[in-house]
Amino acid sequence: MITAGVIGATGYAGSQLVALLSAHRHVTIGYLASHSHVGKHFGEVYPSLALLCNLPLQEEDIEAASQICDVLFLALPHGMASHKVTEEILARCVVIDLGADFRLSDYRVYQSWYQSDHPSSHLLAQSVYGLCELHRRAIRAAQLIANPGCYTTSSILTLAPLLGKALVDPASLIIDSASGTSGAGRSEKVDSLFCEVNENYKAYGVATHRHTPEIEQELSREHGAALVVQFTPHLVPMNRGILSTCYANLKPGVGSDEIESAYDEYYHGEPFIRLMGSSLPETRFVRNTNVCAIGWRVDERTRRVIALGAIDNLIKGAAGQAVQNMNIRFGLDETAGLAVAVASPL
Amino acid sequence: MITAGVIGATGYAGSQLVALLSAHRHVTIGYLASHSHVGKHFGEVYPSLALLCNLPLQEEDIEAASQICDVLFLALPHGMASHKVTEEILARCVVIDLGADFRLSDYRVYQSWYQSDHPSSHLLAQSVYGLCELHRRAIRAAQLIANPGCYTTSSILTLAPLLGKALVDPASLIIDSASGTSGAGRSEKVDSLFCEVNENYKAYGVATHRHTPEIEQELSREHGAALVVQFTPHLVPMNRGILSTCYANLKPGVGSDEIESAYDEYYHGEPFIRLMGSSLPETRFVRNTNVCAIGWRVDERTRRVIALGAIDNLIKGAAGQAVQNMNIRFGLDETAGLAVAVASPL
Amino acid sequence: MITAGVIGATGYAGSQLVALLSAHRHVTIGYLASHSHVGKHFGEVYPSLALLCNLPLQEEDIEAASQICDVLFLALPHGMASHKVTEEILARCVVIDLGADFRLSDYRVYQSWYQSDHPSSHLLAQSVYGLCELHRRAIRAAQLIANPGCYTTSSILTLAPLLGKALVDPASLIIDSASGTSGAGRSEKVDSLFCEVNENYKAYGVATHRHTPEIEQELSREHGAALVVQFTPHLVPMNRGILSTCYANLKPGVGSDEIESAYDEYYHGEPFIRLMGSSLPETRFVRNTNVCAIGWRVDERTRRVIALGAIDNLIKGAAGQAVQNMNIRFGLDETAGLAVAVASPL
Amino acid sequence: MITAGVIGATGYAGSQLVALLSAHRHVTIGYLASHSHVGKHFGEVYPSLALLCNLPLQEEDIEAASQICDVLFLALPHGMASHKVTEEILARCVVIDLGADFRLSDYRVYQSWYQSDHPSSHLLAQSVYGLCELHRRAIRAAQLIANPGCYTTSSILTLAPLLGKALVDPASLIIDSASGTSGAGRSEKVDSLFCEVNENYKAYGVATHRHTPEIEQELSREHGAALVVQFTPHLVPMNRGILSTCYANLKPGVGSDEIESAYDEYYHGEPFIRLMGSSLPETRFVRNTNVCAIGWRVDERTRRVIALGAIDNLIKGAAGQAVQNMNIRFGLDETAGLAVAVASPL
Repeated sequence: MITAGVIGATGYAGSQLVALLSAHRHVTIGYLASHSHVGKHFGEVYPSLALLCNLPLQEEDIEAASQICDVLFLALPHGMASHKVTEEILARCVVIDLGADFRLSDYRVYQSWYQSDHPSSHLLAQSVYGLCELHRRAIRAAQLIANPGCYTTSSILTLAPLLGKALVDPASLIIDSASGTSGAGRSEKVDSLFCEVNENYKAYGVATHRHTPEIEQELSREHGAALVVQFTPHLVPMNRGILSTCYANLKPGVGSDEIESAYDEYYHGEPFIRLMGSSLPETRFVRNTNVCAIGWRVDERTRRVIALGAIDNLIKGAAGQAVQNMNIRFGLDETAGLAVAVASPL
Repeated sequence: MITAGVIGATGYAGSQLVALLSAHRHVTIGYLASHSHVGKHFGEVYPSLALLCNLPLQEEDIEAASQICDVLFLALPHGMASHKVTEEILARCVVIDLGADFRLSDYRVYQSWYQSDHPSSHLLAQSVYGLCELHRRAIRAAQLIANPGCYTTSSILTLAPLLGKALVDPASLIIDSASGTSGAGRSEKVDSLFCEVNENYKAYGVATHRHTPEIEQELSREHGAALVVQFTPHLVPMNRGILSTCYANLKPGVGSDEIESAYDEYYHGEPFIRLMGSSLPETRFVRNTNVCAIGWRVDERTRRVIALGAIDNLIKGAAGQAVQNMNIRFGLDETAGLAVAVASPL
Repeated sequence: MITAGVIGATGYAGSQLVALLSAHRHVTIGYLASHSHVGKHFGEVYPSLALLCNLPLQEEDIEAASQICDVLFLALPHGMASHKVTEEILARCVVIDLGADFRLSDYRVYQSWYQSDHPSSHLLAQSVYGLCELHRRAIRAAQLIANPGCYTTSSILTLAPLLGKALVDPASLIIDSASGTSGAGRSEKVDSLFCEVNENYKAYGVATHRHTPEIEQELSREHGAALVVQFTPHLVPMNRGILSTCYANLKPGVGSDEIESAYDEYYHGEPFIRLMGSSLPETRFVRNTNVCAIGWRVDERTRRVIALGAIDNLIKGAAGQAVQNMNIRFGLDETAGLAVAVASPL
Repeated sequence: MITAGVIGATGYAGSQLVALLSAHRHVTIGYLASHSHVGKHFGEVYPSLALLCNLPLQEEDIEAASQICDVLFLALPHGMASHKVTEEILARCVVIDLGADFRLSDYRVYQSWYQSDHPSSHLLAQSVYGLCELHRRAIRAAQLIANPGCYTTSSILTLAPLLGKALVDPASLIIDSASGTSGAGRSEKVDSLFCEVNENYKAYGVATHRHTPEIEQELSREHGAALVVQFTPHLVPMNRGILSTCYANLKPGVGSDEIESAYDEYYHGEPFIRLMGSSLPETRFVRNTNVCAIGWRVDERTRRVIALGAIDNLIKGAAGQAVQNMNIRFGLDETAGLAVAVASPL
């Protein structure tokens, strides 16, 4: 059995993680921390999960936690994990950070987009970007895994095969994404109130969203040279789900066959990728699953491919991928504890 | 022209009031206060209303406001208005309080349900309960009008004719209400976050909700003796609307005809009451209107009447009724500035 | 392994059943019928479930199905199952009917509420009402199990202990329920369109809803004499969930302790009942689970108990309870294939 | 007074039109037709609008209607209006068609995208494309006005100034739009059921949506040469609203100042255009109004402009613009009967 700890256990990603870990047959949860609910039990904050897990919630002490846990999951606002993780902690246990601090390999890119210094840039060299389908080999040996962002997971998985196979113009990438509201977290903000979100659709972070450099880092790697992407997130009045609608100009001679082959080859045998071809994904198709569903259409009129990727932002976009990373790192069945398909029609 | 001021202008009820007053042909808004947005203009907080009203938002100063306004609307949390209103202010201008402080004529009832002292119980004698259809005459002469609560408006309007005509057993009254989420206000609470409200239905304040004594006060008056009611509110994942489903045991010999006659007589000529008979009201039928729609069914098996009343909680349940009170008080057409029917099918 | 068949497999209850059976370790699905999707595969109609089950959908032939299945689930509109089930079919396999045809033991009650003749009233004597917590013993030996309705499940489970222990006045029962929209099924009706349901709350079937006689039948049995109930359903803009808010007058001398003891004793050891006491249930607490969560408050002012029961209408209110009935009937672990708690915070 | 008729009065666009016309001080409704509700009164189908309009609904007879009406609004599925409109009818009254039949000036483009012959292509020459801000002069003299589609209105209004001023590369236009569900109409389709739409976000009509050639026709006119656009619509779980997120590559030397000037000049004095600059529009900001709100951001990293346009799909995207067209055609105040800002905060 693996002993796991979760710091930031009562946010939406954190609590989803607790739920998944509680049902994981190879895991025992040994430590839960929640700054805002210290002293309560987990089931008091999430009554629907009380039967799965009802551990006490502690004030976070990553030092102590690292002494008793084999793996520590950090689900904290950006800028906090990088203050806490040290070489000593990493020597003792695997750290899977669901935040943004260790995702960008170049600390200057971090400083530019997050407009603050990076307090532990010396650790970036050993951090592995935990997008499982792209970095499985490195994840197996990593002590520090940077779990990708939600928008980034859907965007990179949807576009990587097209760049890896050099089928599209790398200067033409536009990613138009829309997310359910759990992506905004459980913090008390007017903008997240029901009456502000319900019956509304809006864009935000246009040209400035911090998931942009993550997407660029990984797609540049696929492309073999630096590229920039246009990324625009939107907010949808629903709890869960992200759909990324991605546009790219086709290179001369590229058609539907080449696109289909690229996806088939790139994702051959992947348990959590569902290729749908021209039968397009919807967010409900992957709700409560760790699956990324990908579809595409070639538009000969415009010589573009429109590729769409759907995930559950709290599962494949956060907690589920974190568990997948743990499974890979500890040599478990990669699908352990992760439903391939959810048992509900709606 | 009447000069109006609104204190608490950026909450949901307050902003609805600003919107209605801005479009009212007999009103000029002379003063807006918002503790949480001092220094901004109204249109910055509500861009959709900027063309209607874009006055600066001030720190509240009820003394100063009362010098320039003919009528002051207070949209504040309970316990605050009663600290601010004085005889001097009432001598200068009409005060319409959308909060709870002046609704209960007996300060001991207030203290019992609100568990705090009433700081200006000496003003209660001159306060008029502003349920327009029941207290129109007193409202015409009032300097201090206590605008009713949202649940109370729908509940009292639905049950009053049955008690006024002595058709039902006063010991049998059960009111099961459900409200959209704007009723919880615009404050930053986890319970009001989109993801907590969406895809959920719950009861709250069971046996303890503070609208209970208001309902009892008014229905006791209709009945001619003290009665108690069972009142249970629920939260619905929608922005606006309240439906109160009311149950009462029929007195012997009472049937559909007596019920229908009672409603017809009681509400004869009322511009904002829509009697639907057995064609039951839904909250969408009254959205964005000041109408209370009432329907009923007699169940001969159980010898009960089930009467249902629907309102828009922010209009007839708050800001609209406040305007209606102002219209009555200042001798205007009672429907001025209040749409009888909204121009949209959904 | 048990071979199961589902007739009516593509409605909301039917597809939920297919999903649950597909993941059940003791079950193989041998037959799926869907009148409206004959010739397609299940996964074409429900892409999100394609990895769980992708059997072909056949035109229904209950005779043929009964030859290959150990258990047949019928998820059909009322009036259809009673035309199809015969003694011969029941001799060959267990039938669990999710419809209304075999729930009422007195065919005259059926004819009165459904306003049509009962085509197989001779089978009613052997039908067992499949509310598992109340009829477990009879279910073990039944060939024909009438799976209860959704509203009825939440209502009966919430009120049964109070009647069984004679704590409340049986003439005073009022049940005010609200359901998510999946309860209306997947048929193409204007009233079920998104724009008609969204941002609306309404009552329907007031005094005439057909779940009323089911509730009366079972609560009369608990009470030991015939009683009538007042039942009012409402429609909530959400996909899943039912909350029943039940009112009953307390008998003299009955207080919180007696209520609590009644629930504790009645449901001792029940795996799918979660007693919450004064910490009230919400529909999200039981979403995607087979649990009925029950809470209550005693109101000494009115001398009533307000008891609330929440279920997922598609699981405990339909497909989940059907699986629970199968588990009981075939001597399996009663919880097999049924999650006690769902692995998601929202 | 203008006598108006509406054919197709009970769909969402038709009923919105009835509502607006009923409140229009220069209009009397003389004729309402609804194929699916013949014999009922309008208020039976839309109880919330009964006080505004309760005319009987007739079987459509455009000949008879044209004899009594000054203006006829057609709100019919595509392919129907072009069968009914004749030179004779146009000689008698103005026809404003809310459908697609007369929008495309080249009948071959119609045949290509709609895959059917155009039954009255001889009328196309006199049809005026009723996007008011672009074709006001021609509308004043038109007998046949083709009211634009909903997506097209938001898309063209957002991009026209950029093309008219030649600030962007016409080969680079990508329009990613999202609409509330009323855009799918009131017909009984499984895909429009509440449970299918709620908690879901999806794209549809990718590379094939029929609003594409409309957008191309109008933007080509602005550009001065034929261009193609990439247009992708999405479905959002809300009743009303469209947001179009438009991407275009900036020409060398073009920056924020040029963009802002282009919008300011192009829309100078327009009563229904609200330029928000970098303060981006949301669909709720224009709900229940005839306003198109437009905002934009220049991304110097990618050398693109991202321009966003929000409308209420049933008002500026359908019924409101139809009324605006009527106002222009009949020489009325262009804003008559059209609220510039709605009187509600949410």
